[in-house]
Order: sequence, then C-alpha cells, then structure tokens
Amino acid sequence: MMRYTNLDLLKFLLFEVHPVNELFQYERFAHLNDEQVWMMIESAKQLADQTMAPHFKSMDEQPAHYDGHGNVRTHPALKQIIQSAAEQGWIGGSALFEHGGMQLPEMVFGTAHHIFQAANNGVEGYLGLSAGAAGLITSFGTIDQLEQYVPKIYSGEWQGTMALTEPQAGSSLTDITTSAKLISDNTYAIRGQKIFISGGQHEACSNFVHLTLARIEGAPAGVKGISLFIIPKFRPEKDGSLTYNDVYCAGDFQKMGQRGYATTHLSFGDNNNCIGYLVGEPHKGLNYMFQMMNGARISVGLCAASVAMAAYQASLQYCKERPQGRMPSEKDPSKPPVTIIHHADIQRMLFTQKAIAEGAIALGIACNKLYDLSHAASDSVKEKSLLLLEILTPIVKTYPSEHGSRSAALAIQTLGGYGFTTDFPVQQHYRDLKIMSLYEGTTGIQSIDLLGRKVVMEKGKALQLLLDEIQLTIEAAKQFDGLAGHAEVLSQELSRITWVLKHLQKFAANGQLERYLSDASVFLEMMSYSVIGWQWLKMAVTASLKLQSAHLPDNQKAFYEGKIHTAAFYFTYEMPHAAACASTLLAEETLTSISNFDLFN
Amino acid sequence: MMRYTNLDLLKFLLFEVHPVNELFQYERFAHLNDEQVWMMIESAKQLADQTMAPHFKSMDEQPAHYDGHGNVRTHPALKQIIQSAAEQGWIGGSALFEHGGMQLPEMVFGTAHHIFQAANNGVEGYLGLSAGAAGLITSFGTIDQLEQYVPKIYSGEWQGTMALTEPQAGSSLTDITTSAKLISDNTYAIRGQKIFISGGQHEACSNFVHLTLARIEGAPAGVKGISLFIIPKFRPEKDGSLTYNDVYCAGDFQKMGQRGYATTHLSFGDNNNCIGYLVGEPHKGLNYMFQMMNGARISVGLCAASVAMAAYQASLQYCKERPQGRMPSEKDPSKPPVTIIHHADIQRMLFTQKAIAEGAIALGIACNKLYDLSHAASDSVKEKSLLLLEILTPIVKTYPSEHGSRSAALAIQTLGGYGFTTDFPVQQHYRDLKIMSLYEGTTGIQSIDLLGRKVVMEKGKALQLLLDEIQLTIEAAKQFDGLAGHAEVLSQELSRITWVLKHLQKFAANGQLERYLSDASVFLEMMSYSVIGWQWLKMAVTASLKLQSAHLPDNQKAFYEGKIHTAAFYFTYEMPHAAACASTLLAEETLTSISNFDLFN
Repeated sequence: MMRYTNLDLLKFLLFEVHPVNELFQYERFAHLNDEQVWMMIESAKQLADQTMAPHFKSMDEQPAHYDGHGNVRTHPALKQIIQSAAEQGWIGGSALFEHGGMQLPEMVFGTAHHIFQAANNGVEGYLGLSAGAAGLITSFGTIDQLEQYVPKIYSGEWQGTMALTEPQAGSSLTDITTSAKLISDNTYAIRGQKIFISGGQHEACSNFVHLTLARIEGAPAGVKGISLFIIPKFRPEKDGSLTYNDVYCAGDFQKMGQRGYATTHLSFGDNNNCIGYLVGEPHKGLNYMFQMMNGARISVGLCAASVAMAAYQASLQYCKERPQGRMPSEKDPSKPPVTIIHHADIQRMLFTQKAIAEGAIALGIACNKLYDLSHAASDSVKEKSLLLLEILTPIVKTYPSEHGSRSAALAIQTLGGYGFTTDFPVQQHYRDLKIMSLYEGTTGIQSIDLLGRKVVMEKGKALQLLLDEIQLTIEAAKQFDGLAGHAEVLSQELSRITWVLKHLQKFAANGQLERYLSDASVFLEMMSYSVIGWQWLKMAVTASLKLQSAHLPDNQKAFYEGKIHTAAFYFTYEMPHAAACASTLLAEETLTSISNFDLFN
Repeated sequence: MMRYTNLDLLKFLLFEVHPVNELFQYERFAHLNDEQVWMMIESAKQLADQTMAPHFKSMDEQPAHYDGHGNVRTHPALKQIIQSAAEQGWIGGSALFEHGGMQLPEMVFGTAHHIFQAANNGVEGYLGLSAGAAGLITSFGTIDQLEQYVPKIYSGEWQGTMALTEPQAGSSLTDITTSAKLISDNTYAIRGQKIFISGGQHEACSNFVHLTLARIEGAPAGVKGISLFIIPKFRPEKDGSLTYNDVYCAGDFQKMGQRGYATTHLSFGDNNNCIGYLVGEPHKGLNYMFQMMNGARISVGLCAASVAMAAYQASLQYCKERPQGRMPSEKDPSKPPVTIIHHADIQRMLFTQKAIAEGAIALGIACNKLYDLSHAASDSVKEKSLLLLEILTPIVKTYPSEHGSRSAALAIQTLGGYGFTTDFPVQQHYRDLKIMSLYEGTTGIQSIDLLGRKVVMEKGKALQLLLDEIQLTIEAAKQFDGLAGHAEVLSQELSRITWVLKHLQKFAANGQLERYLSDASVFLEMMSYSVIGWQWLKMAVTASLKLQSAHLPDNQKAFYEGKIHTAAFYFTYEMPHAAACASTLLAEETLTSISNFDLFN
C-alpha cells in the first residue's frame, strides 16, 4: 500500500511538540494517558489502511451521482466504512461519556481524522460532518433532541449535515431566505432551497439530520434574524416510527475533485410537509452555527494539510525509487542514472512539500489543543486559549488550503508526466485539494475575518497573546546556535506585522473601512508565514532538545535532524515571501477599488 | 458563447506593442500588410468560435481512450475540426509558399494558435504538433521526404508527432534506447518503445508521421549518438500505396486534464517490420529536434497563457454578473447586494489573473517576433534576435506554466463553490493547465537550461542583450510620471539579477557546478518577474503614448488605462516576490544537496 502519512510525525507532534499529556490534568481528560492515546491513533491508522485507503481511487472513478429520483448513489464500500469508523468511535469519540462519547481530546480525535483525510479525504467528510452536527445538537439542543438524534448519528446509521448555502446568497448568509413558520412550541414549517450540501441524502445512511439555517417569519433582516433548525429527512414520531419529512434531494453537483463525496441540492417543503425543530433560541442560529463552523474550519485546514501530506508521501516514494538522469557534473553517459531524489531541484520540491504539509499539520494539532484547553481548562487558560484559537482559525483554515495546492502541484511535478496520469494518486490529491479554499468560508472571507474581526477583537488582545506565544518560542530558539538566526528572522517578521497593521489602521481610523480591508488576503498570507514559521521553529527547538539530551539510533536521529533541516529550508525558501506581502500592503494607494470595470478589458 | 480571449488585446499587441509591420520590410514577409494580418486573426477567431470552443467541455467528458486494439478513440468532431483548420492554413501557414505554406510570420500563426488554445487547448495540440513535425522535415529532410509527408500533414490528412520519451529514460534523453539498424541508404529497421506521445495514432487522421529519436547501432553513447527518423505508421511505397509499418499503439494514458488530447504509448518494430527514414545526418538528431522543441516550448508557454486567459475571461464574466454581499461599510441588510466585481478581493483576483495571462501572452508574441526576425532578418538583427530568443525560451515556457496554474486557481476562487463544479469551465482550465509545466522539458529542466546554458552562452552575451532591451523600455517609461516609479523598480531588479549571478558564479568558478545550479528554479522564477515586468512596462508605455496622442472614446480609453493600471498592479503585487527569490538565492549554504534521505521522513 502507498504510504499516506507518517506516524513518527504524529507521535512527535502529540507527545513532544504539543504534549497531549498537558490536557490530562483536567477532569475531562483525566481518564487518559499517552499509551491509550497512541493505541487509538494506531487503531485509526489500521482502520484507514484497511477500509479507507483502498477505495481512494475507486471512489474518484465511480463518483457519487444523482439518480434522478431524490437519491445520490455512492460507492458500495461507503456504508461499511462509516459503520466501522462509527464502531471505533470516530464519529462521536470527542463527546462526553454521558453523551455517548469517549471524551477524547479534539487533539486525538482530529489526529485520527487527519489519518482518514490523508487516506481518503472524501470519506472523512461524511464522518466529520456527522461529528460536527451531533456536537451542535449536544451543545445547543434540548435533552430530547440530543437523545433523539445524537446516538443515531454516532452509530453511523444517520448522517448529519450542515445546510447554510442558498443559490441566491452564496457566502452572504445575510441574504438567506429559507423560511420557518411556527406551528407549535419549537416546531416550524420549513420551505426553501439549499445548495452545496455535502453528505446530503445518499445511500450509505438511512436518515439525514440537516442542521439548517432559516428565517422565522417576522424575524429581523440580516444575520440577526437567522435561526437554527434540525430538519431530518425522516422525522421521528412519538411512537418511534419515521415519517418522510418532505426534504427532497433535487440534484447533485459533479466536481473536479472529492468526487466520492456527495454534494447535493436539497429542497425543503415542496409539499408543505417539512417540519424543522428549533435549536436553542430564535434568531441566534448563526452564533450556534459558528461552533460547528469554527470546528469545520480547523478540520478543513487540517484536511488540506492531510491531502498535501498524502501527496508528499507519494512523491517521496517515487523520488526514492525512480532512476533518471545524472548529477550536473557527471558527463559520462555510460554511468548509471541516479534516483531522482539525488537532484537538487527534486530535493527543493520535496522540502517545500514537507515544509508546507508538516508545518500545517503541526498548526492544526496546535489549534485542536487550544480547542481542548478552551473547553476543559479553568478561567485564565480557557480565556487565553479561546482568544488564540479565534485569531488562528482563519490561518489554520487558509494556509493549508492555499499552499497545499502549491504543495500538491509540486508532488505532480516530481513525478514528471506520470504525475498527470490517473495511474498515480497525486493528481487526485491536487484535484481534491482545490475545494479547501472554498469550504466553510472562502479565503477572502477568512481574510476579512482575520483583519476585520480577530486582529481588532478585545482591543487587539488575541493578536498580542499570539505574538507573546511566538516570542516564547523565539526565546527558546535563541539558545541553539543553529536556530538563533531563524529566531532573529521570525522576530523581525513579528515587527513587520505590527508595522503593517499600524499602516493599515490609519485607514480604519479615518473611517476608510474598505481601504483597511482591501488587501486582507495579502495580510493573511503575510501573517501565515510567521505562524507556520513559529510552528517550524517550535519543532526545531523540540528536535534540538531531544538530540542534545539523548543518544539516538541513526534513523531516529535523522528524523529529528530532518525537522531542523526543514525549518532551515522554510526560513530560507518560504519566509522571505512575507516581506514581499508587506511591500504590497504598505502601498499608499489602493489598486483594487476601481469603479470603471472596463479597465478589466 | 463564453468569451475566451480578447481581440482588442491581440490587436494592441500585434500592432502597437510589438508591431508586426516591422517584419514586412523583410522579403519573406513583404507580401503582407496589417489589414491582411488582422483578417486572418479574425477568421481564426471565427473558426475557433464555430468549431473548437463548442467542443471544449464535451471533449473533456468524452476523453480520448484506447480501444484495446491499437487505436485511440477520439471525439467525433475532431476530424472535421482538423480539416477546417488545415483548409484555413492553420497547420502549414507559416511555411514558405514553395513548401505549401502562406509564409505567415510566427507572430501571426502563433496568435491564431493562441485563439485556438484559449478556445480548446486539446484540439490545438493536434494542429501544433503537425505544424512542428512538418517544419522539422522541411528544415532537415530531403526534398523527397518533404514532398512525401509535408503536404499530407498540412492538409490535415496525416498527423505529425514528436516521439522522444521512453519509459526508462523520462527527461533524460541521454538514456534513450530505441534502436535503428541500417538496411540501405537512409533506411533503418527500428525497434523500441515511446511513451507520452501526444496525438499518437487516433481516429481523426489516416496516417501518422512520428518524428522519432533513436540510436543507430554502434552510435556513441549519450546525446551525441542520437539520430532523428521519420517513422510513419503506414509507409508510402514507390507506387503510392501505403504499407503498415509495424508501429503499434500499445495503450494510452488517462489524465487529469487535456482529456480530449490523445496521449499514447507506441511500440515500434514488434514484428521486425518497422522502417525509419533518417533525417539529415546520423547522430545529429537531438540538434535537429531542438528546432521543433524550441518552437514547442514557446507554444506550450503560450498555451498555458491562453488557458489562463480563457479562465480569466470566464471569471470576469461571472464577477460582472453575480450579485453577492455588500461593501464592508454597508451594514444595512435590506440594501440589495452588489455584483461581486465591486469587492476589493475579487478585483485583486481579477487583476492578478489579468497580469499573469496578458503579461505572458505579450511575452509569447514577443518571442514569436524574435523567431521571425531570427529567420527573416539579416545578419546583426538575426544574431541578436536568436540570442534573445535563446535566453527567453525557458522563461516564456515556464512563467505561464507555473503562474498560469495560480491564475486559473484564482478563476475558480472567484466563482466560489461553483468554480469547483463541472457546470463551469474554470475547473477544466485548471486541470488542463497543469500539464504545461511538464511538457517539452519540465520547469527544472528549463531552469537548468537558463542558468546552466543560456545565461553563460557566448560569455553572457544573450543576457546582456536582454538587459539592454529591458533598459530601453525603462528609459522610455521614465518619460511618464505614472511609470517612472515602475521603471525605477525594474531597474533595481536588473541590478539584483546581476548581483545574484555574481554570487552564484563564485560557485561555478570554484568548480561547484551542482551548487551553482541547485536553485536554478528559484533563479528562473526571480528572472521571470523582471521579464514579465518588462512586458507590462512596455504595454504601459505604449498605452500612455496612445492616451497622450489621441482623443479616444471612453471604452477605448478604458482599455489603455486598464493596461496602465494592471502594470501598476503587477509592480505592486507581483514584483516584490522577486526580492524574496533573491533572498533565497543569496544563501551561502545549500539545503538541497543532502545525502541522508532519512531526513525527508
């Protein structure tokens, strides 16, 4: 089987770089220890090896597709995969024991899902969506709602989804029009259309629980009038039977990637018989949804990183095996060719992939740890973790989504023409990955979230906390000769962020909000370089400490040296582009607010 | 129909920026004038509209595929498309009258092909390959060979191909093993395997003329022992009949893009009945092939630019039509949404695409003009044009191939989730484009060609000529207030190139050839920014002159202002990344020459 991730990396991240055992002091996670965690990760790997990876290619070749009659046909293996994953706890595992979960940290749950994403990212989508939907019901629904829906979702019988997007509104949730008319208590008659609903009504589950945003009749305009509803395909009656709830799958979308993952168009209430059950209070739906959305953003970022990782592993294997060409100084054509991993340009492409994929996975795990701390810890740690998570969320979502595509492109490139053929998986990774910059808020939306909300929230407190955290890593790095230079560079980059923000905030202070935000994407790009640089510096410090303190066998030594080397690579090849972004951001005049669109001709 | 290129841009480039009429002074092109040229471009556009663009999507959905019995099934429209294009002269148009051509400049022929590439890049492949193969026979074959093959290729009845790659050798032509055993005169018995043969034996043509590299028995090892052969699928006998020549199509490659364009595996001489006809002298095959290869490299670069252009046009149209969201300062949700082209981030994505696609098309046309001058002009102009073309070829091939993918990714991004669906063409553009960085020498190979050969050729004369040419544009730009800043920046970038080369040449001088070349790709990337910046500055100077000298109607004014604005965008958003590349290149130590590959784990 083709290797798709690296367990040594995961062990390094979970036990050395971002130690999971720091969570065990909290009651919620007190039942765990490192050995148990690792057993779970290994069993997730085994599950992915046995059930998911083998179908990666065939799910692409036999895409999910609409049957013309309300159903989406999916790959025959899907049902069994979902069942097996559910049995091992990989849908409900992070829920509390009392809610039917295993009370796993998101760090552990998310790392298992990273493995699934790397093995078969379409399959993981079904599982992750269900986990998020059930979590949302658990957080904000009634006990009855929890008991009615959550166990069925955790068992893999029912599929959870999130239904936000409407054809006319797209990313602009302000403009959604799906309507809810009060029938009685928390019961509403629903009418409306939702598109791009991942995991919508397919063959592998018997019922679907759509967590849907809709507008109660008479609600205020805009996002302040949006409520959250549970809308099942079949609604459970009091006697335990199920009644069709007038949720019709009206079609699907065929896509360039993630072809095994059903993307549907749902129509609610065509026959005036669709009931939605209000979750929580009216008009607070968007706030609730953001719990799932924020989780989904971390998950999408980690998914992009995971797919980039899988492409990197395939690329690395090929480069080690493929003989071709000779070193530039070898002029004798009778000498045998070398394997291509000897070529400097191939090494550049491999290290670029490694820097992007591993750096992004490290950040994803760091964010999941912050999530855990924000739920399990006490006041000051909780508050700090939450703020850090808030400011990192747009970055953990976006950096892997954007740079992951670049990484997968390099994986194709290392395989030469073969990389473009369906004989190798890297082209599928490249295709699958492209959706990640669109899911759960596009790059543009993440960027406005970062610069417009997160950077300024609580008078810049989240940003300051992040800069302080990075500074701690910088100080630790200064202790090592080989890392002091990187520490200096990263320190300069932090100053640059502050400097650029000062420049931009002039505009905000003058009420020029459009101008302040006009290059938000470039700002996110710039700041990402520092955040990923921070993760690489942290990995390099951890590796340096390990090499200093222990006498290791050669292969383990190489693993740690590889982290230090890749950090150096990152600081030499990637980091310089942050200054280029700053140069763009420091321009006085905006070039992207033209009103004469004929200039585009 | 969806717009896929912009005739105004082509007019601007052909008649104002890189005036084609400068060629008419030479005998070869003395029969032409501007009006004729434009009529031909317009008729090419009409042909593309009528025959090519309508099949862009369906050729992707019905990919070329092997039938299991030696043939590749292609789209039913293909035969008619090739015939129509041939009738209009778009296979043989740039050949001399005496060789059955229309004696068109490559500037004109290539611009017509740009239109075809933008409309349906797979289809253009068949035409371009035939043109290149016939050109190669014309240049180096005998009169008999020319008379036997070229008219049939120009008429579209026979398909020309280039057959270089072998399974075990890949990019390393030194290692090809296809063998040729002398029978008599220029006639050889051929045996061997070739893969990735584009346009190999399909349904739309009745015969195939494979321009094939093989090794004559007893030839020296390496590239100095490679000869060029004409190997037809059916060989013409003296009586005019055709005999099957034992060239068997043994399979095809299914790909992530360019799915309508057949990619085949050919087997020569399985039954010891394959005859190849030597072209030119023995052992000089690679030199000959480089005529076709160099042309193909410009063409691939232009193709990448053309596909990026088509994606840009689709993106622009969508952004003008799609209402979504409000400006950041508009807080009232009852106000109607704006079309997304109003959003700064959308404008950033559109200008990035425009800067990449139009900049690359401008360079492609500039290179074709150099090609024409190198063929038609007299000694000093000829020599200068040839040297400029030599140094620009790796850049005109690579910049659009690499940045074009980034551009098409932005086209997807502007469409949101729709961009990822097969309902819109941008995802196909993105998939198709990815092959361009692999065709005709990968990015790594182009980069070594640039830094290892072109930069140092004739003691750096080609480079100096290029820097001088760019300097002329800088001087012209200084005359305009709005461009003087860009001129200054570009001037600094030229100094940076010289500075970086001085640093790298230390290594070459010490005999550290591997070290000199290790970051060749980063060097090409850096230098590309200046070369494309040069094209943008040239376009901006031309536009400024026009605006100064003429009173134009609003829409024409906007066209020229758009060029000046996009140049400013390029210098603000793209150019700063050249300095980042330089920072990488100026590192003392190499990080990409490791010998312990466990560091990649």
